[in-house]
Amino acid sequence: MTEQVVIALDAMGGDSAPDMVVGGAALASRRLPHVHYLLFGDSARLEPLVAKHPGLSGRVEIRHADQVIKDDDKPSTALRSARDSSMRKAIDAVKDGSAAAAVSAGNTGALMAISKIILKTLNGIDRPAIVTALPTAKGSCCILDLGANVQCSAENLVQFAVMGEVFARTVMGVEKPTIGLINIGIEEIKGNESVREAAAILRETTLPIEFVGFIEGNDVAAGKVDVAVTDGFTGNVALKFAEGTAKLISGFLRESFRTTWRARMGYLLARPALALLRERTDPRHYNGAILGGLNGIVVKSHGGTDALGFANAIAVAVDMATHGFIEKMREDFESLRAEHPATDPKPVS
Amino acid sequence: MTEQVVIALDAMGGDSAPDMVVGGAALASRRLPHVHYLLFGDSARLEPLVAKHPGLSGRVEIRHADQVIKDDDKPSTALRSARDSSMRKAIDAVKDGSAAAAVSAGNTGALMAISKIILKTLNGIDRPAIVTALPTAKGSCCILDLGANVQCSAENLVQFAVMGEVFARTVMGVEKPTIGLINIGIEEIKGNESVREAAAILRETTLPIEFVGFIEGNDVAAGKVDVAVTDGFTGNVALKFAEGTAKLISGFLRESFRTTWRARMGYLLARPALALLRERTDPRHYNGAILGGLNGIVVKSHGGTDALGFANAIAVAVDMATHGFIEKMREDFESLRAEHPATDPKPVS
Repeated sequence: MTEQVVIALDAMGGDSAPDMVVGGAALASRRLPHVHYLLFGDSARLEPLVAKHPGLSGRVEIRHADQVIKDDDKPSTALRSARDSSMRKAIDAVKDGSAAAAVSAGNTGALMAISKIILKTLNGIDRPAIVTALPTAKGSCCILDLGANVQCSAENLVQFAVMGEVFARTVMGVEKPTIGLINIGIEEIKGNESVREAAAILRETTLPIEFVGFIEGNDVAAGKVDVAVTDGFTGNVALKFAEGTAKLISGFLRESFRTTWRARMGYLLARPALALLRERTDPRHYNGAILGGLNGIVVKSHGGTDALGFANAIAVAVDMATHGFIEKMREDFESLRAEHPATDPKPVS
Repeated sequence: MTEQVVIALDAMGGDSAPDMVVGGAALASRRLPHVHYLLFGDSARLEPLVAKHPGLSGRVEIRHADQVIKDDDKPSTALRSARDSSMRKAIDAVKDGSAAAAVSAGNTGALMAISKIILKTLNGIDRPAIVTALPTAKGSCCILDLGANVQCSAENLVQFAVMGEVFARTVMGVEKPTIGLINIGIEEIKGNESVREAAAILRETTLPIEFVGFIEGNDVAAGKVDVAVTDGFTGNVALKFAEGTAKLISGFLRESFRTTWRARMGYLLARPALALLRERTDPRHYNGAILGGLNGIVVKSHGGTDALGFANAIAVAVDMATHGFIEKMREDFESLRAEHPATDPKPVS
C-alpha cells in the first residue's frame, strides 16, 4: 500500500481554469490512486465540476477562496491584497502541513513571491529557481533557472547546480548526475564574470558532484549532461526558443505531408508511428516546473495547458513529495554551507 | 549584365578547410556567375584543389598565406602574431578595397577581433554584433547579437535594433521591418535594466523604425517580428538551443519511421515531400552570419559546415555587397547619432 498524499490545487489559475484543473485532477487520479486533493477556489463553480468526475468522489475537498490572482497582477499587488486568493491558500496549505505540495497554473511572478514569503527559502539558498526536466536524445535533462532570477551571481549559479543535482538524483533517478554550466563556448575564458566564477567554485568544490564544466546551448538537447545550469533570463529565452522551434518544425512537417497525394498516403501509413514522435515532443508531457529552493514543494504548470498537461504537473508534485526532495535538498545545502559559509548572509530578494 | 563582385575567402578556416572552401566557391559560382574570388591560404594545397573545379577557372586568384589561425587561439594571440594568416589577409583585402567582402569559417573571436582592428566600427556603433537570418513560420527573422557581446548596455541594444532594421530592409527585402526586443515577458516591468532602458529609448525614438516592444523566445520562430534583438550571451545560447532542438526532433522523426513496417512504407511514400522539410530546416541553408557594424562586410560561416553551407555563406556576402548594406547602415547611424549623441564617445571594446 502506498501512503496517501495530499496535493493542494490552485483551481483558479491558468487560461482554462477551473475546468482544466478539475479535469487534470481527474486524469491524474486514475494513475495515482493514493492522491487526494485540496481544491482552492470558487466553490459554487467547483462543486458541479467535481461532481462530473466520479473518479474524484471522496478524494477532493473543496475549500472556498474568494479572490483570484490575475495574470497581469504585479507580484507586489498579489502579496498585499490577495490573502484570500486560491493561490495564496494553496501555498498556505503546504506551509501548515495539510498538503504535501501545491500546484498552480497561475501568474508565475505572484506564485514565486507568495511562495518565498510564506514558505521561505531553504537554509543556504539565497534565491529559489524555476526547474524543469526537458527531453533529450538520451532521456531527460534537468534545467534551471527558467526565469525566476533575471541576474545571477556566481553563488546563485553554484546553488542552482546543487539544487539541480538533488533534482536529478531524487526525481529523475540518476545515480551520479553530471552537471554543466551553460556558456557561449567551452573554453575557460568564455562568458561573463558570474559563469566564470561559478565554474571556478564548482571545479574546486569537495561536494560529491560531477561538474563537467561549460556546455553550449545545443548540448542540452544532445543529452550531454543530466543538469544544465544558467541564469533565469537566458534559461527562459532559450527554453521558449526551443518550444518555438519544435512548433515550427511540426508545422513544416504537417505541410510536407500535405504537398502531394503520395505524401498523404505515406502519412496515413506512418501515422501510428508518428504518434510516438508527438508523444515525445508534446509539451504537455513536460509540463510542471518546480520552484526549487523553498521549504516546501510548489509546482508551476504552464498557464495555457489543458487537463492532460495539468495532470502531468500534479504527477511532478507527487513525485517530489514521494521522493523526499525537500529533505535531500536540506541535507545537501548543509554541506554546501559548511564549505561556503559566504553564501549565507546574502539577502533573499 | 551584373557587375563583377570580388569576394575574399579565408581558405584555411573551418573543420574541413580548405576543401570545403574551394568546393563552396565552386558551388556558389554556378549560381553567381558574376562573382570572382581571392583565395587566401596555402597555395601548394589550394592550386590542385582549384584545378579540380573547371567552373572556377579564370575566376579565382590564389594569394599565399603562411599562417593559419587555430580554433583555440585567443583573439589577442591572433591579433599579435598572425599578420600573415589567411584570415587576416582576407580582411586586409576588404580594407584595401580589393574585395567587396570577406568570408571565413575560422575562429569567431579572432575574426571579430581582427575585423574590428582592421575595418573599425561604423560611426555611431560602439560594438559590432553577429547577425543572421533564421527560418520562421512566416519567412525569416533577422536576429542579433549571436555572441559577439557577452554583456550589452541599453545603447548597444538600441544600436543592434537599428543594424537589424537595415539588414532586414536591405538583405531580406522587407519594406518596413518590425523590431522586437527579446525579454522574459512582454510586460514593461520585466527583464533586466538594459532591456527596459533600451525599450524606453526605442519607444520614444523619432527614427522611422517599427518597434513592437518586448517579445518572448518563442515569438522568433512564430515569425512575430522581422528583427529580434538580444544580448550576445542570450542570443548565442538560444540559437544553439534551437539547433539542438531541431536535431533532436529529426532524430525522433527518423526513429518513428523505423518502428514498424507500415511506418517504413509511409516514409518511402512521403520521402520526396519530406525533402522539403529537410530543405527548410537544413542549417546549411541558413549558414553565414554577418559581423554587423563594421566598415566592411565580413561573413562568418559555421566552422563545421560543408561546401553547400559555405556556398550559402558566400551568397550572403554577395547579397550584402550588392545591396549596399554598409552604405545604408552609415546613413541610418548618422540619424541615430544626431538623435542620441551620447552613444558616441563610448569606447570600442
